[in-house]
Amino acid sequence: MPASDHRPAAVLNGREAFPHRHLTGIAGLQPHEIMFLLDEAEQWVDANRTRAKSDHRLDGLTQINAFFENSTRTLLSFEIAGKRLGADVVNMHAAQSSVKKGETLIDTAMTLNAMRADVIVIRHGSSGAVQLIADKVNCPVLNAGDGWHEHPTQALLDALTIRRRRGSIAGQRVVICGDILHSRVARSNILALTALAAEVRVVAPSTLMPAAVEQMAVTPFHDFDTALDGADVVMMLRLQNERMSGAFIPSTREYHLRYGLTPERLERAKPDALVMHPGPMNRGVEIVSSVADHPERSAVTEQVEMGVAVRMACLDVLTRGERGVEGWA
Amino acid sequence: MPASDHRPAAVLNGREAFPHRHLTGIAGLQPHEIMFLLDEAEQWVDANRTRAKSDHRLDGLTQINAFFENSTRTLLSFEIAGKRLGADVVNMHAAQSSVKKGETLIDTAMTLNAMRADVIVIRHGSSGAVQLIADKVNCPVLNAGDGWHEHPTQALLDALTIRRRRGSIAGQRVVICGDILHSRVARSNILALTALAAEVRVVAPSTLMPAAVEQMAVTPFHDFDTALDGADVVMMLRLQNERMSGAFIPSTREYHLRYGLTPERLERAKPDALVMHPGPMNRGVEIVSSVADHPERSAVTEQVEMGVAVRMACLDVLTRGERGVEGWA
Amino acid sequence: MPASDHRPAAVLNGREAFPHRHLTGIAGLQPHEIMFLLDEAEQWVDANRTRAKSDHRLDGLTQINAFFENSTRTLLSFEIAGKRLGADVVNMHAAQSSVKKGETLIDTAMTLNAMRADVIVIRHGSSGAVQLIADKVNCPVLNAGDGWHEHPTQALLDALTIRRRRGSIAGQRVVICGDILHSRVARSNILALTALAAEVRVVAPSTLMPAAVEQMAVTPFHDFDTALDGADVVMMLRLQNERMSGAFIPSTREYHLRYGLTPERLERAKPDALVMHPGPMNRGVEIVSSVADHPERSAVTEQVEMGVAVRMACLDVLTRGERGVEGWA
Repeated sequence: MPASDHRPAAVLNGREAFPHRHLTGIAGLQPHEIMFLLDEAEQWVDANRTRAKSDHRLDGLTQINAFFENSTRTLLSFEIAGKRLGADVVNMHAAQSSVKKGETLIDTAMTLNAMRADVIVIRHGSSGAVQLIADKVNCPVLNAGDGWHEHPTQALLDALTIRRRRGSIAGQRVVICGDILHSRVARSNILALTALAAEVRVVAPSTLMPAAVEQMAVTPFHDFDTALDGADVVMMLRLQNERMSGAFIPSTREYHLRYGLTPERLERAKPDALVMHPGPMNRGVEIVSSVADHPERSAVTEQVEMGVAVRMACLDVLTRGERGVEGWA
Repeated sequence: MPASDHRPAAVLNGREAFPHRHLTGIAGLQPHEIMFLLDEAEQWVDANRTRAKSDHRLDGLTQINAFFENSTRTLLSFEIAGKRLGADVVNMHAAQSSVKKGETLIDTAMTLNAMRADVIVIRHGSSGAVQLIADKVNCPVLNAGDGWHEHPTQALLDALTIRRRRGSIAGQRVVICGDILHSRVARSNILALTALAAEVRVVAPSTLMPAAVEQMAVTPFHDFDTALDGADVVMMLRLQNERMSGAFIPSTREYHLRYGLTPERLERAKPDALVMHPGPMNRGVEIVSSVADHPERSAVTEQVEMGVAVRMACLDVLTRGERGVEGWA
Repeated sequence: MPASDHRPAAVLNGREAFPHRHLTGIAGLQPHEIMFLLDEAEQWVDANRTRAKSDHRLDGLTQINAFFENSTRTLLSFEIAGKRLGADVVNMHAAQSSVKKGETLIDTAMTLNAMRADVIVIRHGSSGAVQLIADKVNCPVLNAGDGWHEHPTQALLDALTIRRRRGSIAGQRVVICGDILHSRVARSNILALTALAAEVRVVAPSTLMPAAVEQMAVTPFHDFDTALDGADVVMMLRLQNERMSGAFIPSTREYHLRYGLTPERLERAKPDALVMHPGPMNRGVEIVSSVADHPERSAVTEQVEMGVAVRMACLDVLTRGERGVEGWA
């Protein structure tokens, strides 16, 4: 791992290392703050691989997972993360919620707050919904994905996966391919990876590429093969027709031909390039099984594992203030 | 707080203070028993405001929340209450349940009982369903709302809110406005508030007013403005078109004009009158936002907070017998 | 209890007593292994009847209940079982899951595995789905019912109920009546009961009887009355029209006339014969209420109680290896 990847651990301690109340996005985080969260996550990767993976630092704290959008993986990951830290974890599903009765989002936020939640994890279909709630409550809020905006813990787990597998993030050529325009995963990853000095290339059909993507310090490509040249990491996005409202929607077959990751295409990347996908995968569409399941190249299941560790780190760090941890109060 | 609000603490101890096995409704409770639950809840209000809000008195007990009707707020509140006391809390959602397979309610009750539940919390769409279950099981049953019948913990949390904010319940002029006929919230509140010597006025369109409402020791009004005169507390009910089967259903606009709480209308109440709503609110229908969010007058979020405390008190008190607490066995 | 019912406890210890990593079915289990699980369950029957029913042996372990089919009873039973043993229990409902997004079953399995589950409980609509997952993950897998294949914990709880109520399983004449062809409950029960030397009779309309049922060491009957002659146990199956795709579907009324358990019909069995049903019951179809609720004969609620105990035993035994219990590592 090159020195540039290390946070200045000797300089920043306690609250100075991560002076944010909420984690609503990667935007606004300093590179050393991102690195701090990754460093914190390492201990949980180790702990989760042992028999005794429980910890008690969140004992007596109430974690509410308020999911206004369905998500098995992310909800499971946050629920497991919270329970392993000892929190009382309570799930609020939108399908059962007052949202159906017409309650405003703010009212829901005020309700969760009045129940004295100690940390709230939110997934919502509208960009900015998480910030709206964060502004109203007295406890830390964690964004588990909001609209087309951000999905910061996904970017953190991806960064951790890259750092562990490639030894470094800085200088890595990362190719992100898919619906860049509507993907909160792409957006958060671009923010995190460019902050950590990776070279990020984005690939999408012109209709699914943001207009001013160059301003995000990435290089846009429309041809996947060209973009793959010399890649260290190939990060595929899930084809989500349901999000592409109003946009040109390619046929699945056409999409696969132009943007599907195949073994032939992967040969254009470095011989030891890493293959990533946030899941769930559409096998045969954006990725074929021989690549998705490649024993050395694919990091797909490792991403899931890093997800729990990263979320444990975020839950721990964000609640240090209210838990009165020395240096964080 | 006037002396009349105090239970005779020196006289009644242990099981004598609350000699009921279940909490199926406010009906049947003595005034001092209601006060006892409110007094018990006070400690949890305090505890929930601290960092270390967990307690272990229900460790090893199984609390089943059997919700045959959707309810985010009440379910969350009971789940958080149980977990903060250390119980193993398990939710049974009707949407996933055997109810869909045609199982009878009694069979479901016998199943929960056979799993050795230590306390069962039930919400059901039919009046009397909770009592039916309570009659069949070997553990305490808590009514979380059944049909048009009762919602006792709502009445308790409302009473606690009034007592804390107004210093007393006795002598307070409380105006309850909305669909009195179909509201279990109204019914339980009327029972609790009249038992505690409040002066209760109820306001509703004639089609939504119970026929013999005077027998409940309240004064009925059809004109909201008149009823508000000198009010200490204005308690708005949620307009629930879904419950008004067979009844005259006013248009939302017409309802708002006659029964919506506006700042102008609130001026008829006392200058420091409290505004309450069980939530979720239909803003612009039964209440306008400037009133609902009024920093001094609105108690809406405080009601939610009191809800968790009241439910902790009920779960604690009702399980003392089986936990072998001295004086309760 | 006859000697034949006892496992040779003095001979087999630790891992030798139950050398299986998973519990995907009764098939493949030795009689003494089934008996070992029943013996283990006895302690939990006792513990669950006391006030302090919690145990901490699964503290820090993550139990994921992955239910791809709805099931209130079985899910509740496994959730309560895990929580009473101290596990962090997380439910994954198919209705919210990535399955809807087209993810493959293997991908879901790999995801649960990557989250470092310590034990996975699975219910799935397809026969063999559980084995498919068991082959892919690094932790014990418990089958909570898969398609028409097996439902092993149901067979274990039924066996435990019979052993406790009849003193023995060997030599008991057990009549199983209903849709034998499509019932995983019937299949697992036949395997367990014949392994334990019961005399098993199966009764079904010819269209709902497996072709080669005699190979399962049972005696097939089409006439319920004849089969009941001298029965020690009458085990009724739930009429599940939804499972009988492609088969002759009898009318409910006709089914009841020929295969419904009535007091008159029960008189053909032994005077103290036990009546069992896995639930939920269709009262008036496969069983009438006076039989289902018979205070001495019906074991229906006891079956539910045994279910929690049996599942606690299975969760405990299957995780002994990874918990490093002496003799099991």
